Amino acid sequence: MSWNERKRPICLEKRFEFESYDLTRDFLDKLGEHSESIQRFPDISFGRTYVNITIRPMKEDSELDDVDRAFAQEIDALM
Amino acid sequence: MSWNERKRPICLEKRFEFESYDLTRDFLDKLGEHSESIQRFPDISFGRTYVNITIRPMKEDSELDDVDRAFAQEIDALM
Repeated sequence: MSWNERKRPICLEKRFEFESYDLTRDFLDKLGEHSESIQRFPDISFGRTYVNITIRPMKEDSELDDVDRAFAQEIDALM
Repeated sequence: MSWNERKRPICLEKRFEFESYDLTRDFLDKLGEHSESIQRFPDISFGRTYVNITIRPMKEDSELDDVDRAFAQEIDALM
């Protein structure tokens, strides 16, 4: 499944679903380590078995670029 | 600071702010352990230096009760 590209505000969004809270937390932990290693912190919403991620452009009020899309793919690779 | 009580949908909400991503993650880790120990999983949104928590009533379509308010206080105690 691919990321949804939104226009107002400009962002990439994706919902990940999991079979248990343990799997949700494993993913959040990996995501946290990755965020820290590249110093990029998306907005994240989660509950017991889902995680929603919102990636905004690095530069405020600009378009999404290849770096943003690469970040989305890196997150996919954590699954 | 106290929790905001909302009516539609019925829930308790609170925003916690932190000085660094490390402190944000420490709080999320404690919250995760507590959630797991009592098997109650609120909806959580977070970014680098904030965490928003939404507590809904345990029983769907019911009012908030003392157990819900106690859970909110337990979360405050994790700070």
